[in-house]
Amino acid sequence: MRREWTTSAGEVLLTVDPSMPRKGEQLRLALRRSIAEGVLHPGTRLPSSRVLSADLGVSRGLVVEVYEQLSAEGWLTSRHGSGTTVAMHPSAGPTRGHEPMPQRSVAALDLRPARPDVASFPRTAWAAATRAVLADMPHRDLSYGDHRGHREVRAAFASYLARVRGVRATPELMVMTNGFSAGVGSVVATLVDRGERRIAVEDPGGYEPRRRVTAAGGEILAIPVDDHGLVVEALDASDADVVLVTPAHQYPMGSVLSAERRAALVDWARRRGGWILEDDYDAEFRYDREPVGAVQGIVPERTIHLGSVAKTLAPSVRVGWLVVPEPLLEAVVSAHETRVSQPGTLEQFVLARLAEDGRYDRHLRQVRRRYRQRRDALLDALSCSGLHERVAGVAAGMQAVLRLDDGADDTALVEHLRDRGVELVALSRYAIDSSARGLVIGFGQPTPAELRRAVGIIADVVSGQG
Amino acid sequence: MRREWTTSAGEVLLTVDPSMPRKGEQLRLALRRSIAEGVLHPGTRLPSSRVLSADLGVSRGLVVEVYEQLSAEGWLTSRHGSGTTVAMHPSAGPTRGHEPMPQRSVAALDLRPARPDVASFPRTAWAAATRAVLADMPHRDLSYGDHRGHREVRAAFASYLARVRGVRATPELMVMTNGFSAGVGSVVATLVDRGERRIAVEDPGGYEPRRRVTAAGGEILAIPVDDHGLVVEALDASDADVVLVTPAHQYPMGSVLSAERRAALVDWARRRGGWILEDDYDAEFRYDREPVGAVQGIVPERTIHLGSVAKTLAPSVRVGWLVVPEPLLEAVVSAHETRVSQPGTLEQFVLARLAEDGRYDRHLRQVRRRYRQRRDALLDALSCSGLHERVAGVAAGMQAVLRLDDGADDTALVEHLRDRGVELVALSRYAIDSSARGLVIGFGQPTPAELRRAVGIIADVVSGQG
Repeated sequence: MRREWTTSAGEVLLTVDPSMPRKGEQLRLALRRSIAEGVLHPGTRLPSSRVLSADLGVSRGLVVEVYEQLSAEGWLTSRHGSGTTVAMHPSAGPTRGHEPMPQRSVAALDLRPARPDVASFPRTAWAAATRAVLADMPHRDLSYGDHRGHREVRAAFASYLARVRGVRATPELMVMTNGFSAGVGSVVATLVDRGERRIAVEDPGGYEPRRRVTAAGGEILAIPVDDHGLVVEALDASDADVVLVTPAHQYPMGSVLSAERRAALVDWARRRGGWILEDDYDAEFRYDREPVGAVQGIVPERTIHLGSVAKTLAPSVRVGWLVVPEPLLEAVVSAHETRVSQPGTLEQFVLARLAEDGRYDRHLRQVRRRYRQRRDALLDALSCSGLHERVAGVAAGMQAVLRLDDGADDTALVEHLRDRGVELVALSRYAIDSSARGLVIGFGQPTPAELRRAVGIIADVVSGQG
Repeated sequence: MRREWTTSAGEVLLTVDPSMPRKGEQLRLALRRSIAEGVLHPGTRLPSSRVLSADLGVSRGLVVEVYEQLSAEGWLTSRHGSGTTVAMHPSAGPTRGHEPMPQRSVAALDLRPARPDVASFPRTAWAAATRAVLADMPHRDLSYGDHRGHREVRAAFASYLARVRGVRATPELMVMTNGFSAGVGSVVATLVDRGERRIAVEDPGGYEPRRRVTAAGGEILAIPVDDHGLVVEALDASDADVVLVTPAHQYPMGSVLSAERRAALVDWARRRGGWILEDDYDAEFRYDREPVGAVQGIVPERTIHLGSVAKTLAPSVRVGWLVVPEPLLEAVVSAHETRVSQPGTLEQFVLARLAEDGRYDRHLRQVRRRYRQRRDALLDALSCSGLHERVAGVAAGMQAVLRLDDGADDTALVEHLRDRGVELVALSRYAIDSSARGLVIGFGQPTPAELRRAVGIIADVVSGQG
């Protein structure tokens, strides 16, 4: 069964088969191809997500997601009030192939969540540490090395995690990875291989880790989240083998797993022999009090602890880590090796040096102060606009949620906001079965002034709809 | 069916089940576990590979490989004349877990192949380029970026490959990877997904790429190699969908694919619709004349061109690239994205800068000169020892092959040489069905004096055995 988008003259512009898997990919490829081959001309206005989703028999959220991705890649442009159009490619014709233009068409006020303030990246410290590392690292460390990462680096991070996060780590139990997602892939592949393939995830929760779980052969079970974090009773009632959880700061809702729930989670892992995949997501950024220690510190024998520097330093630095219980270690290392996901040695050494000489801590203190100021600016602006009662998840991290009524069309709101120049993400995009709706607002990158401007527009649009 | 290695008192030291898959992994895990748990004490002498392979019902080559790996990891020690023993761990008891000691027990004269001269790594240039890149890269490039690598970087490498290797590359067709192996994984996964899973490989040929092919779901077909490179008639007679080939310099035999064979290979790809995975392995290091251009330049529509800086700069720099024909591009990028194998942006920029300002070329000229001197020293020494007639593959690269009679026990010879302090690799380790035997001698790292010393020992051992 193929569904088509045709012009009024009957010309076929896009074809998707909704009975086949990977509809998002089908649509993305079909759109790119039509643009590359000149079937869709620059400046062509695309149908609204509502119309196209009805025409093609796919969900509206999927159309929105594909539009967003192709916009970020430069294929499409979203302009205030004029909807989504095929981007103008000044010098690119169909023969140039599939190159997105370098310009990104993200709206002027970029409030997408989970984006750290890369303007704070410690460039001088990084360059100095690189020079220092290159001045004294042994030649042999430039050759083929340990797939788990260099031992010195693992020791430096084990010590950092023990000190800052209460993780019970030793260099022996650590694996340095090419980032958080790569670590999820290796761990889930290992567990699936052991027959432990039912992976519980938070709902709403990050969609990127879910993609990794599915790609590694895991089966997703959705577990609800409330103001106290993951609803562990629901986990207990499921037949999950594994749970992927963000205890320090639930993403995207921002709740912190309560003490009672933590105890219940630990109990679940011990009683059921379940594995906790602890995503220690932006745990360093807690504003009201000291961050809660890692769950791994309580139940190291049932927890795989995952972290990276994507949020603390910059997403472009491809270094993350795993702390793995000893019985899983060999198999995880083997999966990690097969997936060729070790990070570069130089970057590892540079990070270890920054962690050891205190400059990593200093950087974290600086950005924590900056995020706190931005959070305060966001909260103030939301208060002034009368929206503060809808806000959740601001005690930590770099995003907040503006709750809407359950079932509200947050996707339409986000599209509308994009037309008004504000880019953020609908809460429904993180949902599996959850009916929670809202706007997920990132405050890591925008300045306080930009946040105030954005909130003005958000308030206008929300009240206009509500 | 379990096979065991027991002490004379009947104590079980190691158990392997040869009827189960992954015997190498079984043996590796069993050995590590026995050492970690104190079943095998530090200083314990292990059986010879001949004895253990017979006891456990596995191949001798496999035992040698596992011994080598655990030696490299520090679990085992190989000493002159005393065989392989469990390493002394000064402060590590069974409770310390699975940590290999930092010391590496590679023999004094390290002639392992495919190891570049990391002592020549351009440390100063790298530090300077890092500082320069950090001084002017836009903030946004530190955030989430294009999975295919930054466009500027792809443009820099496309231009380099066109200039130096005659590759028909554009930034649009390039994908920056976490290294050669990661690229093989993404490409093979894509082809397997299309139903093109019969992957022909060179025999003898690199075993590392074969692991990646198998891990990605490909089926290995062994195609013989002779003095003119891959025997294309044999490829033609097979039902391969894809061929993984090293045309510029066959690894490990060192032959260059002849003009006639190149034409036949191109003809095979066009006629059969086959894919050529061109491993452009150490193509930059040709000594007798200009390197032959890449096959991709002749038949870009049927070739996936793969390269990395592991051999030209250092294996610890995790950056490689793919040049992909347009019809495969979307799917390869998707596989690449799923496997999270993009390299760090900073490293990409640093490399691009070195490639653009000519310092990468200068570095290549310097190491080429150095490798040529070392090759000459190796050849002179082999001549003086009367072994020059057995030598193959010295016109390029950083290794040579000392041929032995077909079916000779090169594994035993390698073990013997290790006892004498010379570390190199048996040709049989690269073989699938091939009966070619010999010693693969790397000359990238050792000095001319070390090469002369090593050849003296090699000549002694070879003549002693022959």
